[in-house]
Amino acid sequence: MPQEYEIEVTEDDRKFSAAEGANLLEALQEQGYELPSLCGGLGLCGKCRVKVLAGKQPPTESDRELFSEEELERGMRLSCRVEVEDDLVLAIPSLAQGKSEEATAKSDLDEQIVDVEPDSGIKRVVLDLENPGRGDQRSDANRITDEFEGSYSFPLDIMEDLPEKLRENDYSVTVTIDDSSGSLLSVEGGSSQYESYGMAFDIGTTTVAGYGLDLETGRTLNVDSRENPQGKFGADVVSRIKYVRENEDGLDRMQSEIIRAINELVQGFVDSRNIERKDIYRATFVGNNIMLHLLTGVDPTHLDQAPYIPAFTDPQTFDAEELGVKINSGGKIVLLPSLAGYVGADVMAGVLQTGMHKSDELNLLVDIGTNGEMVLGNRDKMYAASTAAGPAFEGANIEQGMTARAGAISHVSIDDEGQLELEVIGDKRPIGLCGSGIVDTVGELIKAGLIGEKGGIVSEKSALPRPTINPLGNRLIDMEGEKAFWLHVDNNPVFVTQQDVREVQLAKGAIKAGIEILLEEFGATAEEIDRVYLAGAFGNYLRKENIMRIGVLPRVDLDKIVSVGNAAGQGGKLALINRGKMDEVNKIARDVEYVELSFRSDFTEKFMSAMSFPEAGE
Amino acid sequence: MPQEYEIEVTEDDRKFSAAEGANLLEALQEQGYELPSLCGGLGLCGKCRVKVLAGKQPPTESDRELFSEEELERGMRLSCRVEVEDDLVLAIPSLAQGKSEEATAKSDLDEQIVDVEPDSGIKRVVLDLENPGRGDQRSDANRITDEFEGSYSFPLDIMEDLPEKLRENDYSVTVTIDDSSGSLLSVEGGSSQYESYGMAFDIGTTTVAGYGLDLETGRTLNVDSRENPQGKFGADVVSRIKYVRENEDGLDRMQSEIIRAINELVQGFVDSRNIERKDIYRATFVGNNIMLHLLTGVDPTHLDQAPYIPAFTDPQTFDAEELGVKINSGGKIVLLPSLAGYVGADVMAGVLQTGMHKSDELNLLVDIGTNGEMVLGNRDKMYAASTAAGPAFEGANIEQGMTARAGAISHVSIDDEGQLELEVIGDKRPIGLCGSGIVDTVGELIKAGLIGEKGGIVSEKSALPRPTINPLGNRLIDMEGEKAFWLHVDNNPVFVTQQDVREVQLAKGAIKAGIEILLEEFGATAEEIDRVYLAGAFGNYLRKENIMRIGVLPRVDLDKIVSVGNAAGQGGKLALINRGKMDEVNKIARDVEYVELSFRSDFTEKFMSAMSFPEAGE
Repeated sequence: MPQEYEIEVTEDDRKFSAAEGANLLEALQEQGYELPSLCGGLGLCGKCRVKVLAGKQPPTESDRELFSEEELERGMRLSCRVEVEDDLVLAIPSLAQGKSEEATAKSDLDEQIVDVEPDSGIKRVVLDLENPGRGDQRSDANRITDEFEGSYSFPLDIMEDLPEKLRENDYSVTVTIDDSSGSLLSVEGGSSQYESYGMAFDIGTTTVAGYGLDLETGRTLNVDSRENPQGKFGADVVSRIKYVRENEDGLDRMQSEIIRAINELVQGFVDSRNIERKDIYRATFVGNNIMLHLLTGVDPTHLDQAPYIPAFTDPQTFDAEELGVKINSGGKIVLLPSLAGYVGADVMAGVLQTGMHKSDELNLLVDIGTNGEMVLGNRDKMYAASTAAGPAFEGANIEQGMTARAGAISHVSIDDEGQLELEVIGDKRPIGLCGSGIVDTVGELIKAGLIGEKGGIVSEKSALPRPTINPLGNRLIDMEGEKAFWLHVDNNPVFVTQQDVREVQLAKGAIKAGIEILLEEFGATAEEIDRVYLAGAFGNYLRKENIMRIGVLPRVDLDKIVSVGNAAGQGGKLALINRGKMDEVNKIARDVEYVELSFRSDFTEKFMSAMSFPEAGE
Repeated sequence: MPQEYEIEVTEDDRKFSAAEGANLLEALQEQGYELPSLCGGLGLCGKCRVKVLAGKQPPTESDRELFSEEELERGMRLSCRVEVEDDLVLAIPSLAQGKSEEATAKSDLDEQIVDVEPDSGIKRVVLDLENPGRGDQRSDANRITDEFEGSYSFPLDIMEDLPEKLRENDYSVTVTIDDSSGSLLSVEGGSSQYESYGMAFDIGTTTVAGYGLDLETGRTLNVDSRENPQGKFGADVVSRIKYVRENEDGLDRMQSEIIRAINELVQGFVDSRNIERKDIYRATFVGNNIMLHLLTGVDPTHLDQAPYIPAFTDPQTFDAEELGVKINSGGKIVLLPSLAGYVGADVMAGVLQTGMHKSDELNLLVDIGTNGEMVLGNRDKMYAASTAAGPAFEGANIEQGMTARAGAISHVSIDDEGQLELEVIGDKRPIGLCGSGIVDTVGELIKAGLIGEKGGIVSEKSALPRPTINPLGNRLIDMEGEKAFWLHVDNNPVFVTQQDVREVQLAKGAIKAGIEILLEEFGATAEEIDRVYLAGAFGNYLRKENIMRIGVLPRVDLDKIVSVGNAAGQGGKLALINRGKMDEVNKIARDVEYVELSFRSDFTEKFMSAMSFPEAGE
């Protein structure tokens, strides 16, 4: 029986015991502490941070990446990466309501400055105005607008309050103007120059992320997320469209669920920074186009049947109030542009974030989820396509697939001796495979010669190199007539089946064929690709060599592959804080040429051939 | 006892008797028929028209001015000008709900085409769109916007209905676009190209007029008016401001009253043309600036004390929905610009209508009501001022003053023999004087030598020319120590007192002094004025010679004086149907220089001296 250690949480003075080697995040969650974790315990998001006040807990590699030297010395650690090996006394910043802990959180987030000069067009200006008099009979409104070069219109509610507002503050006010709309957003008493905020939302089918930014500095002040509550109506876009079609109030319900989640994220930002909703003046939205339809209450049902027509692809601006998003009553909701029904604002925002639309080099952006979306091109021309890749890379449709959470095998490697090594999220007993685990398994089995070019798992141990001493042979099993390869055996064995390999082939074949068609359209070969951007979590945790080995991409040098994380969210932030970036993404959506793969007669042929594993032996 | 005639009304088959010589409008009103009359029975507005189907009723001069030959032959008459002298069978178009009578009304109003090419920026376009297909995957929104050169945004409610609207109409729709806002205003099934309307409102302190126009043709389709219901809170702007100051909900009540009246006028237009509220896409508003503040619910209380600061003077655009004006839900309310607190959008619209801002000649626009507003200038420079002229010219503050309605002496002339001739509205027994009556009386008395240069009514009959035979002498009376001149004697005598003359002097002195200061500012003399525009009812019914004789204006040739009627309302119509005109009036308000007379030390001196009657003998 393993050693037990004592964990003490200072916020509520509770103590509990945890086994040696236990994952600290999970131990805390088991005790009812609601620590957020966006990345599923991958040590990426930094949300599960704790402060180790006493006890031995050396920084992990993830800690070193996320925290400054000073923070490490203060004891900041990612609880998701901590294996308990001592009695610990902890502070948990995310639980704290006090100012001091907020300040701590702030210092971390202040670092997340988006790499562009802030120019949202929303400005706060402190005005100490001349009092009116015999020589100065200008109207209240002109007394303000004369301070600016452009002309600004007054919303009715601001005009109605204006005479009193000016006089009760003796003509000293802080004014918020929006250069994009040429409108005033607020007139407030006193001087409070720096209180202008915005939010960027990334509405994923599964997860809704909200970023709170300071429009003045461009700093990200808050990152938070929620499960997309529409999940209860269907896990993927197809089932949600079906729900809308089959339920009279389906669209309304979808919309109110997502708006509610957004308002929770707004409230979270407001609470975290002790600001007010009225101080949030703009919100940008990225997401796939179906999510944007559901957000705005626009029927998406024409998107699941040919010719797949969305109601809109252009950027949209609506009044926040009209949509029920509770920011400043004059605030605007800005949807970034989509390209087509299945190449959404998330992809356009990703292009923006990579900058490939301004590059002389040939870039490929691949965003893989249930659909795989890809954009190929350079400053002169760009092509984009979407494939129904199937959800294998998200761990779905896989016999023992699961999302990337504790217990999922996230990485697999097989050495030359045939020894298998597993990496399991949370260092727990493995209970299944997530997307990266399945990709690794297939990749390593190809390398080991256990999967053939057409995707078949070998049936003969003799096919192995040095078969007599290779332990892999024992892992090949026959499961009720289906070949399989086991990764872990205990009460709950984990294995990969022939059918799982087929799912991977379908997914990667669709993506690869799509890329090949884009290359043809562009008139280039794979060798000419200068850079491949992998967007989304996919790119963050997959091993490039196995991506290449299973052939998701045409053959390119591994060092051309770059992970860009949540490029969509980053693009949304860029468009939020910089008007030029908003113009840029609009131009991208106008310039990229959409290629509808499902109408291409050559797609099927390419798809069939792309399903094979050319790196495998015959 | 006078002869009685029988009047029959075909609309309800009722018959009643009326005395010989009775005014037909009044006789009808006494019987409960609600005939509208905007001009108070002056034969100007044409609202009280009836159709004489049987009976002898030759056309009057007013009839000849208002009706075409054909209409006269059909029996159209202004009931306010009819003296009953036969049995009559009548049709009353304003009572009729039927189509045929509407058509009659239409043919009259069709003539009222505003003299500018319609270019409101609001266009209806019938689109027979390509169905989507494999080669055409454009979004629903782009399928529409691609038909236009510019870019147009979709309001949320239109976007939400768009997918269904397109499909249920097989992609044949009529779209309304607004080039001013770059927004779509409607997407409707089928083809209905010509259903786009607008309204121009002239919000007077006393009367609210609403003009319904066809935006496509620029035609005025409907004219209607209401008493300004704010009247119950105070007859003039000063008492309304006082009401707002002294009642917590005063501003709200003022606003809801005027909005209700506007919505009644909207409904009247809708009913008269069998259109729908949604087909009215824009409304312009002119009025004095206090009326515009009360309309928008903006506190006007800083306008009645120096330095007289309004909340706004610039043009304003608000959502009709937000203001509660029930036109198209995406329609806009446009307030024309004011120049200052007391030189309102009505005056700016008047300048627009006269075109004086584009003239090489030196023009003077004078609009006289409770305040007198005046604008002097040409294309190079313009100056404007407002004086608290006092309400004498509206018949108020005059011992026996009254508004211009039946029984008011509207014109007075005295011939060389000293014979007096009165003109009474409705040809009734006189019961008082309206503004034009008092001006005429004072003017004629000056001419007859009965009022001296300083305004005193002569006390000596000997002052009269040919005193022994001049019957005017008998009209000079002493009323409890105050000199007076009687115009009519019966049970209810009508006379003009010395104090009345003083009121006229105050009013005309203020206006004349204001004009003199504007002339100084401009650097011109009165002789250099090329044209004087008299705006409002004032100009319509005053005799130029008496305006000049009492000295409301500096001395100019009579033929330089032009009455321009309701120039404010006309200007509002221009700005409604033509964007260039809206730009023009905005430029006018920016370019005209405002002169605050109450701050001018030289005003009092000029005012004192302008009160005299230089045309009178010493």
